[in-house]
Amino acid sequence: MSNTHKFKIGVVGGTGYTGVELLRLLVQHPNVKLTAVTSRSEAGQAIAGLYPNLRGHLDLVFSEPDIATLADCDLVFFATPNGVAMKMVPSLLEANVRIVDLAADFRLRDPLVWEAWYGMPHACVNILQEAVYGLPEVNRDAIAKARVVANPGCYPTAVQLGFLPLLEQGLIDKHHLIADAKSGVSGAGREAKVGSLLCEASESFKAYGVSGHRHLPEIRQGLTLVAGHEVGLTFVPHLTPMIRGIHATLYGRVTVDNAGDLQALYEERYRNEPFVDVMPQGSHPETRSVRGSNLCRIAIHRPQGGDTVVVLSAIDNLVKGAAGQAVQNMNIMLGLAETAGLEQVALMP
Amino acid sequence: MSNTHKFKIGVVGGTGYTGVELLRLLVQHPNVKLTAVTSRSEAGQAIAGLYPNLRGHLDLVFSEPDIATLADCDLVFFATPNGVAMKMVPSLLEANVRIVDLAADFRLRDPLVWEAWYGMPHACVNILQEAVYGLPEVNRDAIAKARVVANPGCYPTAVQLGFLPLLEQGLIDKHHLIADAKSGVSGAGREAKVGSLLCEASESFKAYGVSGHRHLPEIRQGLTLVAGHEVGLTFVPHLTPMIRGIHATLYGRVTVDNAGDLQALYEERYRNEPFVDVMPQGSHPETRSVRGSNLCRIAIHRPQGGDTVVVLSAIDNLVKGAAGQAVQNMNIMLGLAETAGLEQVALMP
Amino acid sequence: MSNTHKFKIGVVGGTGYTGVELLRLLVQHPNVKLTAVTSRSEAGQAIAGLYPNLRGHLDLVFSEPDIATLADCDLVFFATPNGVAMKMVPSLLEANVRIVDLAADFRLRDPLVWEAWYGMPHACVNILQEAVYGLPEVNRDAIAKARVVANPGCYPTAVQLGFLPLLEQGLIDKHHLIADAKSGVSGAGREAKVGSLLCEASESFKAYGVSGHRHLPEIRQGLTLVAGHEVGLTFVPHLTPMIRGIHATLYGRVTVDNAGDLQALYEERYRNEPFVDVMPQGSHPETRSVRGSNLCRIAIHRPQGGDTVVVLSAIDNLVKGAAGQAVQNMNIMLGLAETAGLEQVALMP
Amino acid sequence: MSNTHKFKIGVVGGTGYTGVELLRLLVQHPNVKLTAVTSRSEAGQAIAGLYPNLRGHLDLVFSEPDIATLADCDLVFFATPNGVAMKMVPSLLEANVRIVDLAADFRLRDPLVWEAWYGMPHACVNILQEAVYGLPEVNRDAIAKARVVANPGCYPTAVQLGFLPLLEQGLIDKHHLIADAKSGVSGAGREAKVGSLLCEASESFKAYGVSGHRHLPEIRQGLTLVAGHEVGLTFVPHLTPMIRGIHATLYGRVTVDNAGDLQALYEERYRNEPFVDVMPQGSHPETRSVRGSNLCRIAIHRPQGGDTVVVLSAIDNLVKGAAGQAVQNMNIMLGLAETAGLEQVALMP
Repeated sequence: MSNTHKFKIGVVGGTGYTGVELLRLLVQHPNVKLTAVTSRSEAGQAIAGLYPNLRGHLDLVFSEPDIATLADCDLVFFATPNGVAMKMVPSLLEANVRIVDLAADFRLRDPLVWEAWYGMPHACVNILQEAVYGLPEVNRDAIAKARVVANPGCYPTAVQLGFLPLLEQGLIDKHHLIADAKSGVSGAGREAKVGSLLCEASESFKAYGVSGHRHLPEIRQGLTLVAGHEVGLTFVPHLTPMIRGIHATLYGRVTVDNAGDLQALYEERYRNEPFVDVMPQGSHPETRSVRGSNLCRIAIHRPQGGDTVVVLSAIDNLVKGAAGQAVQNMNIMLGLAETAGLEQVALMP
Repeated sequence: MSNTHKFKIGVVGGTGYTGVELLRLLVQHPNVKLTAVTSRSEAGQAIAGLYPNLRGHLDLVFSEPDIATLADCDLVFFATPNGVAMKMVPSLLEANVRIVDLAADFRLRDPLVWEAWYGMPHACVNILQEAVYGLPEVNRDAIAKARVVANPGCYPTAVQLGFLPLLEQGLIDKHHLIADAKSGVSGAGREAKVGSLLCEASESFKAYGVSGHRHLPEIRQGLTLVAGHEVGLTFVPHLTPMIRGIHATLYGRVTVDNAGDLQALYEERYRNEPFVDVMPQGSHPETRSVRGSNLCRIAIHRPQGGDTVVVLSAIDNLVKGAAGQAVQNMNIMLGLAETAGLEQVALMP
Repeated sequence: MSNTHKFKIGVVGGTGYTGVELLRLLVQHPNVKLTAVTSRSEAGQAIAGLYPNLRGHLDLVFSEPDIATLADCDLVFFATPNGVAMKMVPSLLEANVRIVDLAADFRLRDPLVWEAWYGMPHACVNILQEAVYGLPEVNRDAIAKARVVANPGCYPTAVQLGFLPLLEQGLIDKHHLIADAKSGVSGAGREAKVGSLLCEASESFKAYGVSGHRHLPEIRQGLTLVAGHEVGLTFVPHLTPMIRGIHATLYGRVTVDNAGDLQALYEERYRNEPFVDVMPQGSHPETRSVRGSNLCRIAIHRPQGGDTVVVLSAIDNLVKGAAGQAVQNMNIMLGLAETAGLEQVALMP
Repeated sequence: MSNTHKFKIGVVGGTGYTGVELLRLLVQHPNVKLTAVTSRSEAGQAIAGLYPNLRGHLDLVFSEPDIATLADCDLVFFATPNGVAMKMVPSLLEANVRIVDLAADFRLRDPLVWEAWYGMPHACVNILQEAVYGLPEVNRDAIAKARVVANPGCYPTAVQLGFLPLLEQGLIDKHHLIADAKSGVSGAGREAKVGSLLCEASESFKAYGVSGHRHLPEIRQGLTLVAGHEVGLTFVPHLTPMIRGIHATLYGRVTVDNAGDLQALYEERYRNEPFVDVMPQGSHPETRSVRGSNLCRIAIHRPQGGDTVVVLSAIDNLVKGAAGQAVQNMNIMLGLAETAGLEQVALMP
């Protein structure tokens, strides 16, 4: 562990929940070294002052997000609000810095769709075209060569990994997919909002954004590519009284006479995937079984042998749904072992 | 309030969560008087010793569940495990006592279906035939005259009230209904089970019983009666890290060309229902908005104007999903105001 | 209930947690009628839109906090931030409106102490002099005649009720009292603060304000009056991962040779208090046993018969610690039954 | 990491919460190899079936707790109920196996005190005499040479580390120490008990065991050794609605005229301790800042400069309060780096 080469890594916007989770993973990663963590609002402050879990693990202070400092990095993560990365990425690419963006700036291929859902014009459409959607289970080879990787959203990760095998094989009605998804409150970020207060969000459960959520076009885009055909999707996110975790319950109607052994299909599809765990027949994955880990655990059911298939997909929204997948993408981009720094056992109980 | 007549009420099995919730409601009810609360395991103990929230409100001790004591009541509630009520009800009917059973003994009309799902033969099939399913929004008149009312299950209440207007009007594909339902942990009862421990059930989310849950045949029976046609239903219950609340997210596919104004349909259907609140267009009911109250709050959505309709239905599983609905049924049976003793404002936050 | 006279009541600042709790209690109160609920920020909006638990119970809209409207009330509650009431109270007194202030404006008798802890000069020192501290268990008679009642803070209520009998009898060392108090997060209010987010405050426990909390001088003032001698108090508040509830664990050193039967002392002291429940010897009150109710439950211990006495005192911080006690004060001021509208059974589980 | 020697480790009683936490730490430890995990009730079952967080990390099945299998280990942990280890340890010592007992069997030096608090005679008093109390910050050298280490209780760890510097220096009244301690529910174990149900323990706070808790004699014994004088201690444990974490709030009265700079005292005392973090002046440690980590974070206050000193001490009860400290003891016993396998960053949020 001593004198191995360590890649220099920067993090822009390290104060939110995906930011601190990225720092947790990176300070324990054997092959990288954090050289800059920026925050406009906290510049000059010790990072471990804001996040005491990092006391003793990280001595950096937050720095101003300036290109000069970041240009010295091998790779830079953006854990910023939507719309920030697209303004800084062009300069960093010129300095040969590779990018993983945890926000949405490079997730949607069509700039008009992006503009419609995010309410601002895209600042670098040409880079958007070359950016690779960072779902390793689909795009591993392209990620390895990419200069810019768009790290998927949390819901899109859980939903796509759950539906993939069925859509790849054309087994279900692709016009009427249903994704009923439940997220812990950390998905709403560290922003001081009334709706995220403990007194508002604990001991309660609700749906939100039923009329339309920004992850809808992202999921639709991903599933459409896999299905080879425009898919129809009803996506209903819900707020769950817990900190971490996403559970997606997916419904599809089987449209072929003999769909075969779906359990075997899933096991085969994900056999070599280090971070997708197809659980035994009849299982019900719990979000806590992936708390703090980069795994997506999946179970597939066909209740009463009917024509509706139910897939259960569980991730930690901050890990496989954000920072962990970002590190997984970084590992692939830098030619490291894909699992480096990502083998934590979930915290249970 | 002084010298009004008070009905004499008994509760069999008052130690579980539906039992104590029933006691909370009954001690505050203006027209009834608790005369016997039985518990085999706690006989002789002060009720308020087990449930300190009742200190100062109820001076009774638990008594043995014997027929003689209960025979003096006008009406007896059973808040017992499945299979208990059906053994005692025949004797109580002979004594002219009316019955509301909060367990499942009288919910399924077909004794063979009951036996298949509950794993025991039914002990009084003839009474099963006369029992009335106690969903007042459907069966109010029959409840008024019934000797035995089968109080609906918690999930079945939320799901049926959510689907009713659509099925009554024949607007959706009745063969492919989907009910994705989420319950707080009190739905699992007060039994000491590892899966209900705080350390197992908090900070986590999971589905359970995907292959088949006892509330499935109950919901199917109720919806079939309303639809006038055997319905097909996929029902997936989930465990949510909170004490109280059920949120059902219901999906149906619209099958008629002009389904009309669904918001107006729901408002009209429930206009005179004291305990169903159709929320304004675009709403997302929170379970906490009904915590401790007998209301079911409903919102109806048609995302992106597509052919999938999404209904959100929220209740307190211990109130409208159990004890509150039981009191509502009692009120109807005894000719009291339907809302008597049931006008509590939900506790929020 | 029909044609009884109803007092006209106003609430200034009805959008916070003590505000909505006050509304929950007042809409169910048999002897009062809400005529004005003001909020500068929400004026014109339906109250039940902000707090859906009030749908069907309250049809008012928030109005601007203007004196003219409020002057028509018999009594006005202030559920406003500190410093608001003291500016409006003089005008309302001129209009013969009586006042219960749930904020801190009239709690500390010494205007210099007030200024030191609240960081602003007091706006109406003369009224401060006449204001009565609204702890009914100490000041019932004065409250009945008061024009302005300062409703006690949440911690001060739990701590004072716990220490009272010991200090009244002079049984413990009054120079070294210790109050280790734990509060649910609703004590921090409905303001959007990072520290109150579910992701910050759940699944964690911490002390705060150890160097000095605004409730320290309030408690010290109250205990000093009772003890007849300046008391010394170490007060350490803690944030507990739950919505409602305060639990104070109080430590005192017995200084007399024969302190007598402390259980009997407490039972005797609170025998006629409708809202203080001295639990049986050996009890450990749970905050949930008072959730939503106006009770303070107390237990007294003397571990291993040593010279340290331990008092456990539990309240719902939003009820006996705020809105419920305010209604209790209102009842006393208006000559109503002290328990009117306050007999709710705690919600458990 | 490749061909280094790995010590063979056994775990007796791997099904409880301290057991699974031990497994989480050991499967990630670079210098050890799990060779046997026993459970009488689960023998033959895959460990990862019971604890899905271990899927992919541990392929063992639970085996019967028999001496032959365990005798092959270099070191065996007991994560069993009290009274089990003392029956098996003699045979294992004969086989030259070293022992870390996470239960209470070897914590109290006086067998009569043990018998009084644990309700059974001690089975191996001679081994009790040689056993070393495994608080490394006090007994590091003795631990290194010990055959049997008694791993401290969770409360005793937090309380002793908090009081140590003050008692070592004789700065406070040792006859009247107060420890007001709060624990998450995992401290009650994985046993199916009503009091540990989510519906009983969440959204509530209570004290328990005020008349006497088994950790009282353990803490008293440890503090007495440090103080060189029998100490007097009032210990009040509380149940907090969260899974993990202990927060001890400690009170002592300063008895010397010039106690000096207490912050500097603590920093100096723990300067070389890898797992005790003295936080900056004025801090309030949060239990979440140590969730999943082996740290004890401490802050020291002297409110208003009075004569009462307040120490805040936070640990994860399952890590520094149990399994992590056990691994720390193992590291010391086996001559490994004391921090090996224990450098996880706390999970936050």
